[in-house]
Amino acid sequence: MASYQAPLQFMRFLLHDVFKTEDALKSMDVMEDFNVELMDAILDEAANFSQQVLFPINQSGDAQGCTFKDGVVTTPDGFKEAYQQFINGGWSALGCSEEFGGQPVPKSLHLMVEEIFYACNTSFGLYPNLTNTAILLIDKHATTELKNSYLEKMVQGVWSGTMCLTESHAGSDLGLIKTKAIVKEEGKYSITGTKIFISAGEHDLTENIVHLVLAKLPDSPAGSRGISLFLVPKFFPETDGSIGERNNVQCGSIEHKMGINAQATCVLNFDGAEGYLIGEVNQGLKCMFTMMNCERLSVGIQGLGLADVSIQTATEYALDRKQGRVQGSTQESDAIINHSDVRRMLLSMMSSNGGCRALIAYAGNLYDVSEHHADENKRRSASQILAILTPICKAFISDNASINCNLGMQILGGHGYVKEWGMEQLVRDVRITQIYEGTNGIQSMDLLARKILSDEGTGWNHIKQDLCDMIKEAEAVNNLGKDCTRVKQAMTNLSSVTDSLLQDAKRNSNLIGAVATEYLHLFGTVTVGCLWLKMAATAINSGEDGVFQQQIKSLCSFYNRYHLATIATSVERIMVGDKVITKMDLSEFELTTMVN
Amino acid sequence: MASYQAPLQFMRFLLHDVFKTEDALKSMDVMEDFNVELMDAILDEAANFSQQVLFPINQSGDAQGCTFKDGVVTTPDGFKEAYQQFINGGWSALGCSEEFGGQPVPKSLHLMVEEIFYACNTSFGLYPNLTNTAILLIDKHATTELKNSYLEKMVQGVWSGTMCLTESHAGSDLGLIKTKAIVKEEGKYSITGTKIFISAGEHDLTENIVHLVLAKLPDSPAGSRGISLFLVPKFFPETDGSIGERNNVQCGSIEHKMGINAQATCVLNFDGAEGYLIGEVNQGLKCMFTMMNCERLSVGIQGLGLADVSIQTATEYALDRKQGRVQGSTQESDAIINHSDVRRMLLSMMSSNGGCRALIAYAGNLYDVSEHHADENKRRSASQILAILTPICKAFISDNASINCNLGMQILGGHGYVKEWGMEQLVRDVRITQIYEGTNGIQSMDLLARKILSDEGTGWNHIKQDLCDMIKEAEAVNNLGKDCTRVKQAMTNLSSVTDSLLQDAKRNSNLIGAVATEYLHLFGTVTVGCLWLKMAATAINSGEDGVFQQQIKSLCSFYNRYHLATIATSVERIMVGDKVITKMDLSEFELTTMVN
Repeated sequence: MASYQAPLQFMRFLLHDVFKTEDALKSMDVMEDFNVELMDAILDEAANFSQQVLFPINQSGDAQGCTFKDGVVTTPDGFKEAYQQFINGGWSALGCSEEFGGQPVPKSLHLMVEEIFYACNTSFGLYPNLTNTAILLIDKHATTELKNSYLEKMVQGVWSGTMCLTESHAGSDLGLIKTKAIVKEEGKYSITGTKIFISAGEHDLTENIVHLVLAKLPDSPAGSRGISLFLVPKFFPETDGSIGERNNVQCGSIEHKMGINAQATCVLNFDGAEGYLIGEVNQGLKCMFTMMNCERLSVGIQGLGLADVSIQTATEYALDRKQGRVQGSTQESDAIINHSDVRRMLLSMMSSNGGCRALIAYAGNLYDVSEHHADENKRRSASQILAILTPICKAFISDNASINCNLGMQILGGHGYVKEWGMEQLVRDVRITQIYEGTNGIQSMDLLARKILSDEGTGWNHIKQDLCDMIKEAEAVNNLGKDCTRVKQAMTNLSSVTDSLLQDAKRNSNLIGAVATEYLHLFGTVTVGCLWLKMAATAINSGEDGVFQQQIKSLCSFYNRYHLATIATSVERIMVGDKVITKMDLSEFELTTMVN
Repeated sequence: MASYQAPLQFMRFLLHDVFKTEDALKSMDVMEDFNVELMDAILDEAANFSQQVLFPINQSGDAQGCTFKDGVVTTPDGFKEAYQQFINGGWSALGCSEEFGGQPVPKSLHLMVEEIFYACNTSFGLYPNLTNTAILLIDKHATTELKNSYLEKMVQGVWSGTMCLTESHAGSDLGLIKTKAIVKEEGKYSITGTKIFISAGEHDLTENIVHLVLAKLPDSPAGSRGISLFLVPKFFPETDGSIGERNNVQCGSIEHKMGINAQATCVLNFDGAEGYLIGEVNQGLKCMFTMMNCERLSVGIQGLGLADVSIQTATEYALDRKQGRVQGSTQESDAIINHSDVRRMLLSMMSSNGGCRALIAYAGNLYDVSEHHADENKRRSASQILAILTPICKAFISDNASINCNLGMQILGGHGYVKEWGMEQLVRDVRITQIYEGTNGIQSMDLLARKILSDEGTGWNHIKQDLCDMIKEAEAVNNLGKDCTRVKQAMTNLSSVTDSLLQDAKRNSNLIGAVATEYLHLFGTVTVGCLWLKMAATAINSGEDGVFQQQIKSLCSFYNRYHLATIATSVERIMVGDKVITKMDLSEFELTTMVN
């Protein structure tokens, strides 16, 4: 069976030492109560709860899956009980406004707690996570009346939330949705249409489900500018907060999937269901992004957590499993962790995943600054950097997580391919993170076209400054010279590629599409390289030189030798010489009859 | 549902135009009957049979899986009937000696037929494939008596074969096996031990199963030099060829796996089972390699076939699915095949898989030369090149196939993650190819340590000559200049890395292990680059310029711009400057307590 202990030491190091969260909160005038002890206590509790309650029902949940009968979805054995413990522990309130009973927490802490939940049970973690981000959306965009009717119950976790975007013919392109909204009376709409792939769309964990639904009003503009957002409850709430009549929304079926089998992925039929407008008419997609941006970070974190389980299990296996002899050994056989190829795989996974965890902490930090910093300029620049980091966190981390879960499985060989050890479940569960909440191809286009090119490089200049500062700080520290040189060179590459793209690609969507995936990979790799420098510098500056600090330096060094080497390929794929990128213009290739 | 049409045009192109198989056979004095028409007829028939009989039971076979009860394994619905049709069609005789009723065929043709079977149903294809390679082993190494008792029935397909190597504590390191063989009487041995992960170890397709079992005689040398090989039948044959008494071998259970669920992966308990020595005492592993080398090619081909299904299905989906608009479009939305990022993924898959198919054809060609060429020197050099290509075919193709099946799934987005379309089954089924018959890490070590370094570069010089000839031939053709320059540069990189390794790594297994995987990737990529040049040159020299020829040129060009770019990373990971490789010495990294 898979092994997992929440990486608490690493998390504390990121929170307290690398990003100095307690200090950062002081310039924010919110969450004054937060100190190191409180953050540690929350992390400890999250680890205890997840390891004891969520992890034991992960493999059984996969085997059993959700079942669907006559419109009713039943989650696997133990999920209802675990969910009760989850809300009794107050976990559903994390990150929500105090006004509705929530407990605001630093975002980076919140994201670490999420990582622990997802590592132990991604299928489970998705149910409360969707509620949590739905709360954020409603809190930010809905009327006071709606907030008062729904938020308290949702914060308590007795009602849950969903996001209803995709339709069978409209996924990446939401402008094509056909779900209709017609005004019934002031503030009330009748919603009709079918949504697919709706996570937590129907289940037995909560007494009510609050759907956030994208739909089109009659005569609304074509495409994504004509989409409005509606709150559609499964049951109408009574004024006393109890459950009233049922609304006209029904689950038609659930999907049979590769993984996250304990998560109910539903077809939802809205048949003149009553809904309430959130935000302005035709501004639905903009409101939805409040939820979607959090979900995108969350998807990256799912990958992070699952990959960590793979790393820990593979490490344990590699320490135990004896095959073959290493040079000079006098044993009949040595633990495979001593074989270089296995060591390479483990180091690759550890340095990749540890770096991605720092990336999430960096993003969480920026989130708090962008929301709460006293200085408006700081808020703005933080939000621009976060806008760039969001698709990177989603796509770069999920791509790497998939690679890492596969490497972990590879280390176990045939034992990784059989179900017993749980390694193949990790590969199946993590695979969705590259797809949902916008495929990684869509994330790449978002990064390059929208976040880099559209604003003429303003956001890019902010993050570049940040990353260069990390390098500069590391240069002031002893013993990081070689690493600094490597990362600096990589940063120069990223800069010149970005400058070329700003110059040559701006209005050529064919070119943008052709290089976007490679560009996101390049950007993510360099950013993580800078973050490893920051971590190594922090470890050295701590004055301590224990096992943990040595490991941080080792992984920094490995990352910047091994993973940074991949940017040579990225640069070669994007650039010809120092300027043009025409070599990736793919329109010349005729594909329609390519098959036989 | 997944789509598949056997790539007959591409296969004929490789057989007849690129490798000129008919001519090649003329210098061999075997298979005189073979001509273009006969080869095409066999390919056509294989395609018809597989598409009509094997493909329709692939998805249902996955869903149902094999079942185990009281030592009996039942294959999914339709498998028995399909297997009857398979042997009635004479497919089990392909590649076997005429002496026992077989039909010798050119190896490259045989491998293409295998590709079609695997594409349609890998779980099914494994049953007869293991019989086929077991026949080769018995034919080459067993006594006349054993051959006479077993081969005819196996060639007819009414008896099947297995390879029993792995034990729970001995997979990559077979020197650790504990299964014992004790002499009972002249030529008869009593075999006791438990083997795991035995494909087709027990099933209901054939009336008898012939196990080829590695075991140790008392007082045999430690490690892999003390292993002997035994033939252990499930039922003892009567002299008239009917089935007699049952031997003491029982299936203890079957594995529950990530994929190839219709293939029975068995635990086999040998409890004093009667077995017969094959080959010399303690030379078992050497004999086993006759089977294993064929299996390693076969595993690569599994990947090839599965990836082709993924490519074809993704292409069809991309032609049909409309999302988003391309630049300048006047449609509401365009087929996603027109979006650059999707086009990039398809071109990446097609150029990778097409190149890998050429790699298999190249290996098949060398196999025939190594076995049947009149000139002994040609036989020897072909066998040295083939020895190098075998681990590359296994690991490079399976690694790429896994990437390609994942890309195909990615193109379908959420529709790829649900079971309906069959894309996720391809990802699950293909994943085992990176693991069994020696993990890809083991293949890399085999390539670098045994095939390149141990013979002081003799084999390397032969293949280098072959690859340089391909480049030279392409240089004589118009319009391939840029491609030739790229491949030539890549070949120079491979040469200088290989020379450095020959100089610096020979007796340092830590270094070999640290760079082996990267070296195999580099070698495979450059080899396929050369093969694309050979294909493009053939297409141009044909004088035709139809759609097919244009596609070959396009894919050659894409491969050599896109995939060859990955060697920049490989070279950087292996080399520091122009000589040493110490930067990949991983022994400095302490891993034991890396987790939290």
